[in-house]
Amino acid sequence: MLFCRFMAEYAIGVDLGGTNLRAAAIDRSGKMLDQAADAHFSPGREALLAAIAQTISSLRDKYGADGLAGIGVAVPGFIFLKEGVVRNSNNLAFIENFPIRDEIARRLGTAVILENDANAAALGEKWMGAGRDVDDLVLLTLGTGVGGGVISAGRVIRGHLGMAGEMGHAVVVPQGNPCGCGSQGCLEKHASATAVTAMARLMHLGDNLASVDVYHLAFEDGEAGAKAREIWRVVGESLGAAFATLVNLLNFPLYLLGGGVVAAWELFAPAMLRTVEQRSATFRFSQGTTRIERAALGNEAGLYGAAYLSWIDKPAR
Amino acid sequence: MLFCRFMAEYAIGVDLGGTNLRAAAIDRSGKMLDQAADAHFSPGREALLAAIAQTISSLRDKYGADGLAGIGVAVPGFIFLKEGVVRNSNNLAFIENFPIRDEIARRLGTAVILENDANAAALGEKWMGAGRDVDDLVLLTLGTGVGGGVISAGRVIRGHLGMAGEMGHAVVVPQGNPCGCGSQGCLEKHASATAVTAMARLMHLGDNLASVDVYHLAFEDGEAGAKAREIWRVVGESLGAAFATLVNLLNFPLYLLGGGVVAAWELFAPAMLRTVEQRSATFRFSQGTTRIERAALGNEAGLYGAAYLSWIDKPAR
Repeated sequence: MLFCRFMAEYAIGVDLGGTNLRAAAIDRSGKMLDQAADAHFSPGREALLAAIAQTISSLRDKYGADGLAGIGVAVPGFIFLKEGVVRNSNNLAFIENFPIRDEIARRLGTAVILENDANAAALGEKWMGAGRDVDDLVLLTLGTGVGGGVISAGRVIRGHLGMAGEMGHAVVVPQGNPCGCGSQGCLEKHASATAVTAMARLMHLGDNLASVDVYHLAFEDGEAGAKAREIWRVVGESLGAAFATLVNLLNFPLYLLGGGVVAAWELFAPAMLRTVEQRSATFRFSQGTTRIERAALGNEAGLYGAAYLSWIDKPAR
Repeated sequence: MLFCRFMAEYAIGVDLGGTNLRAAAIDRSGKMLDQAADAHFSPGREALLAAIAQTISSLRDKYGADGLAGIGVAVPGFIFLKEGVVRNSNNLAFIENFPIRDEIARRLGTAVILENDANAAALGEKWMGAGRDVDDLVLLTLGTGVGGGVISAGRVIRGHLGMAGEMGHAVVVPQGNPCGCGSQGCLEKHASATAVTAMARLMHLGDNLASVDVYHLAFEDGEAGAKAREIWRVVGESLGAAFATLVNLLNFPLYLLGGGVVAAWELFAPAMLRTVEQRSATFRFSQGTTRIERAALGNEAGLYGAAYLSWIDKPAR
């Protein structure tokens, strides 16, 4: 007797945040078959590794090992690609300088691909999001920090060590706010959620305002509203300076913004677009064919990108 | 009777400057077989087109049409790649918005490939110059302006319209000197030969000092020497800010500097490298494997790159 079962090829993508872990099984056509999450893994390296292996295994058990094209894991921080090691992961210090890729692979008995979370999100947007119709794009993700990913000819630009995409530390205000990276005036210090909170504090709007609070304030009359609008103008001009440099350097057709802060698009986009137009002759020469837009996949972009790696990259083992 | 002649495959590269025109026949191994030049073509479009066609023809007649792999022409200005048209060529205004690629091709009876001069120089350095051992590099050329070319995976990043590489207009001083591109504080306004002359004027060192004069001044005692050294510090810090952004974004192994101003390397390099180190965590994490160096091919880089295009790009006709 012969049993036949159609095995749709799928991949598993994992997106590792500072305090939560999500995974998804996605088929070759980009259809998300299922998601799994461990929203509150215990801190510490062993608990995290166990949670990652368990979350991936649950999806693999459900959809079968035969059709599994590969496993991609998106992590915050600098990736040393060859070694499969993460450096400088502010939110997950306990995974730094540890061979996380090989240890996950050992527990699962199969190779995995490691990628920076912002790079994975950029690739996800290229595959199934706002960048589906182009081969070249940049995604900046505005969250606690500013992440960046560059897709060229359909693939992530990783750099020779795997650390590419750090546009959050592009200098937009040379003598600006000092940054944890050792520099000052980094984009991340003028356009992230953290930067919005810090600017609100500096302008005496409140000590711990979230960027959404500063968003709502901007619609109010009086001094507070004016100050809030000024903050969004700074965010816009900083993003505009960064995009102008990217447009001049890369002449890509598409630049995307993702992350929570993008909800305030209507408040910062006018200053951003005005600045890009002023600072980039390339942008002016290519009006209409150079687009700066919102990303489409929200916080699922990293899952899509991590899964997609299985089809375009060979695991480095 | 049978005559056999060994036809070494070769390509012709043309480098079009503001007032002179050079061409070279280069074989597949990178050996320069011959050069031809028209040092003082008459101004105007017709004279230029005739000079280009004549210079190329002289090499083709000598080495034969059979072994000719292709013809690449490097020109200053924005290239609209699909149309084969140049925009915004400050020194050659009379070729703007004219189908120069197709007109050269028509006169020669064969296809030609158009490329921006700085992109061609970057490709030349990758093929036969300081970047022979890498696949990814950026070349900044410091001359009258600042040109830039990005080589990724061995090929020029051209952008969707062909205008990529304009790092000379990266913002390094947001409220800095106004630039002809419409922006202000562009790298080109702080690190080109023109910028050095302008800074020397502003600091009352002289009204029309060439960068080589400011180089020699920097070795003198007294106020003039101190001012000249300050100019080179500004050049270094501006280049450092630009390279820091490039290192953070691309994580390439090699960044090159070419053009006449590089002769002052010893005067600006310390401030440049100090700035990159301060402003780029990626650079610090990759010490020893991220190199910032002088280009190797001098003013022949563009000839090599233009010729090499014949082997890696199909003419867009």
